[in-house]
This record gives sequence, structure tokens and C-alpha cells, in this order.
Amino acid sequence: MATSTRQKRSGGRPGRGQTRRSLLDAALELVEEKGNFSSLSLREVTKRAGVVPTAFYRHFQDMNAMGLTLVDESFSRLRQMMREIRHQGMPTEQIIRSSVETYFGYVTEHALHFQFVSRELFGGAQPIRNAIRQEIRLFTSELATDLSRFPMLNHIGSEDLQMIAGLMVNNMIAGTQQMLEVPADAPEEQRQALATTEKQMRLIVLGMVQWRSHQ
Amino acid sequence: MATSTRQKRSGGRPGRGQTRRSLLDAALELVEEKGNFSSLSLREVTKRAGVVPTAFYRHFQDMNAMGLTLVDESFSRLRQMMREIRHQGMPTEQIIRSSVETYFGYVTEHALHFQFVSRELFGGAQPIRNAIRQEIRLFTSELATDLSRFPMLNHIGSEDLQMIAGLMVNNMIAGTQQMLEVPADAPEEQRQALATTEKQMRLIVLGMVQWRSHQ
Repeated sequence: MATSTRQKRSGGRPGRGQTRRSLLDAALELVEEKGNFSSLSLREVTKRAGVVPTAFYRHFQDMNAMGLTLVDESFSRLRQMMREIRHQGMPTEQIIRSSVETYFGYVTEHALHFQFVSRELFGGAQPIRNAIRQEIRLFTSELATDLSRFPMLNHIGSEDLQMIAGLMVNNMIAGTQQMLEVPADAPEEQRQALATTEKQMRLIVLGMVQWRSHQ
Repeated sequence: MATSTRQKRSGGRPGRGQTRRSLLDAALELVEEKGNFSSLSLREVTKRAGVVPTAFYRHFQDMNAMGLTLVDESFSRLRQMMREIRHQGMPTEQIIRSSVETYFGYVTEHALHFQFVSRELFGGAQPIRNAIRQEIRLFTSELATDLSRFPMLNHIGSEDLQMIAGLMVNNMIAGTQQMLEVPADAPEEQRQALATTEKQMRLIVLGMVQWRSHQ
């Protein structure tokens, strides 16, 4: 598991790594308060992080480069975790449950990152939006590849596996956005949102087993 | 069918109704250019519409009230159209096809409205986000009610019908966002996006027929 933001900020001596982290965290906080990354200025970010503006350039070429780092932080570990679950050879029901729980656990633990992702995906600067779209495409392709290894899905062509993986990912993204709206101190609402997404994924699996590619 | 923006702007004498329309259209254009409604100022909107700032208040109480009007314009006719399709007593396959085609036809015809909706849903001011969420909830409930009338779904409880309607709506929203990214002059890409969404909806229906509420 990646070291959490909080841990990195509180422990250790101030140093190069810590300034970089402070800048990234300052940007995430400002996105939460102000609504989107594209409208942030470099000066606002450095002010919040408590460093001089020129210090920014020791860590990032410009604001876009910083945004791309945040996209990368959001997805790289998550994608790896999801693949690991699918490669453990569990029964389908358990793969679904474990995937949904792990995914939402990760998202709630990194809520500021995913709030950033949600907002930039639809209103952000083009390079950042493209990077997010690319991560989602990768996520979808990896899922389609993993689905193709299930013997019970041998009858489905690769284009339709992409279509099905797309449906699953669309629903996980929608679930993420609903989850991010649930207040952190409402565990019952969180549990319900999670249970609904899990049912939806099981229903997709039921449909998938029935699917014939010539349909 | 609602009179389109273009028609209303070009025809007729300038008048009260036309100023109101010019203000709404100016806001939609600015959202497309600048990324989100919440960051627009009243002055920018009136300048783009070519009216004096005080004229704004003859039509809207404030910017939020204008945003709520745009939300209402986006959804009210659409919801009605979708219900009409489901009440025509067509076979399931045809309902799906007709729903997907009508929906995407409406969205592409009102692309600026749905770009506004997409962006405000995740990064907008609270009252506007709430209004959009409320429209989506209504859309989902109406769909769940219509699903409950299908004899082949008699075995599914109302909570699960909401869950299934939610899955369908989540996927239509994802499809909308993908559709809005396709350039207007790429009919083949548009056709493909539409075909994929239609397949996904058919797969959900296959899963739905298999679904047992005690699962």
C-alpha cells in the first residue's frame, strides 16, 4: 500500500520529497474547496503549501505536469490491486465482492484524489482529461483481458468483452461519484452504496454469462 | 419537440422572450469555452448576450436561478419522451433500441445543455448539483416504475428494480459523456458509441430477467 498523504506530511524532516508532497496536497485541498484544478494558479498552490513560487519549478515543469502526477498517483496502484484480485483464482461471487470492496476502500481512502479525477474528467484542461481517459481505457482493457481468461466466457468475442468491461467500468465510475457524495461520517449510507454497486456488478455478470456475441 | 436554440435566436423580433433566450444561450456558450458555469460572472453573460447587466434581473433572480433554468430545460422534455417510448407496448428489444436512439438524438441536439450538466454535476455550485441529482433520481424512479409493469419482472422487488434502473441510468450517463467527446463530424464514431451503449443495455436486460431478488 502506498504511504498515505497524512503520514508523509507529519513524519520526517522537511526536504525535497516533502515539499513536493506539500505542493500536491495543497493542490488537492484547493480543488476540494474551489471546484476545479484548471482554475487554480501556481501562486495559490505555493501559498497554500507555504513555499515560495519559484520552489514549484524544482518539482514540476508547470501546473499541467502537476495535474498529470495527481492522475498517475490516483490510478497506478489501484489498477495493480484490482488485477491482483482477479488473478487469485477465487470463485466469481468472491471476485466481485472483493473487487467492489477493495475498489471503494481505495477510493474513500484517497477521496481527494478521486474528487480531483471526477472534476477534471468533465471540466478539466485537455492534457489532464486525456490522461484520465487513458487510465480508464487501460483499466477497461486490463479487465477485458482478464475476462477473456474465464472459461465460461469463451463464447464471447473480444470486441464484446471490451463492451462488457466498459459497462462494468462505467458502473464503477458512477458508484465512485455517488460514494464521494456520501458524507464520511455516514457509514450506513456508505454500506448501502457499496451493496447496490455489488448487486449491479452481479447482475452484469448474470447478463454476461447469457450473452451471445452474434446478438 | 422543443423549439431549438438556433431557431429562436434567428427568427422573430427582439423582445422579452428573446433576451431571456440570449442570456441562456450566452451562458451555455461560455460554459463550453471556459469549462464551468460556477465560475461565470453575471457581467460576462450579459456582455456575451449583448444586453446591459441590469437587464439580467428582469429574467433571473441571480446566476443560480439561471443555472436551475438550464437544468430544467435539459431534462423536462427528455424525461417525458423516454416515458412515452416505454408506454407504447413495443417488444423489449425495440424499446431498448428506440430509447437509446431517442436519448442520444436528444443529447446531441442539445449538446451544449448536456455539456453544462456534465460539468456542473461534479464541479458545480451546490444548488445546481442538487437540482441535477434530483432530475437523475426522478429519471431513475420513473424507469423503475415502468420496469415494475413488465410481467416478466414480477419476481423482482421494488428495491432491486431501483438498483437495476440505477444501473441503466448510470450507463446512459456514461454513454452521454462519451458521446459528448465524439466530434460532431465523426458519424461513424457516433454510430459505434451508440451501438455499444445499446448492447450494454441489452446485456443488462438479460441479467435482469435472470435476477432473483433473494440473491
